Amino acid sequence: MARIAVFLVCLALSATSALAQAKVSIEKLNQEWVAAFNKGDAAHLTQMYTPDAYVLPAGAEMAKGRGAIEAFWRGAMKQLGDAKLKTIDVQSLGPGAAREVGTFSFKTKAQPPQEVTGKYVVVWRKMGGNWQLATDIWNMNK
Amino acid sequence: MARIAVFLVCLALSATSALAQAKVSIEKLNQEWVAAFNKGDAAHLTQMYTPDAYVLPAGAEMAKGRGAIEAFWRGAMKQLGDAKLKTIDVQSLGPGAAREVGTFSFKTKAQPPQEVTGKYVVVWRKMGGNWQLATDIWNMNK
Repeated sequence: MARIAVFLVCLALSATSALAQAKVSIEKLNQEWVAAFNKGDAAHLTQMYTPDAYVLPAGAEMAKGRGAIEAFWRGAMKQLGDAKLKTIDVQSLGPGAAREVGTFSFKTKAQPPQEVTGKYVVVWRKMGGNWQLATDIWNMNK
Repeated sequence: MARIAVFLVCLALSATSALAQAKVSIEKLNQEWVAAFNKGDAAHLTQMYTPDAYVLPAGAEMAKGRGAIEAFWRGAMKQLGDAKLKTIDVQSLGPGAAREVGTFSFKTKAQPPQEVTGKYVVVWRKMGGNWQLATDIWNMNK
């Protein structure tokens, strides 16, 4: 009985730890995403997505695959800057997948700059040891 | 070598079959979702979500948990009817999770009825053998 209890505690701790590690990795990758966006580096941003990723933008058609995703972000970077992301919740979906819920803000480059804010869901997948964005969708509250 | 090949083929077939089964289950549950929505049965719709599910509506604040989700859908049902869902892609994220990409349409109840169309992402989780919506987010193309 004691062994089973120890095993279950270890299992619970290891699951908690895997989730905490995924959360840390995802928050770090979000910083990388924001830096690439704010530098206007669409190529770098796109490499953070899985090759078969989906991006489902509010106000535009869905983009599948890195070619379409890079074209979308290159266009968005012309209009928007000062990206900020805030992770609200990360849920582990198994050893190689996680679901993130978060909020974002951007500022329009048109003068006077206006703030665009909303919420997003990203499904992350671990590909060859690295977390990548596999599905990225967002919308606005108003 | 032959044994390894047979094993790999079986593994691939079993993964394909699990994905195909998940897709069939999800499409059937979408029919149930649509039927509940079109009947105005917010309680039934809400039971299709995991207890800790997130709903992130376009044009409204995110709702977490069945209480908030039921209140949201009850409000939406007053404005919208004739729901239609179309699954575009299901990706398996392990034995207990899948990501669906799809498109939707609704008709407003105000006269004259207007069509509202867009795209969505649902993260499904298998809870006690049954697939449930764990994260539900959508937006419009325009």
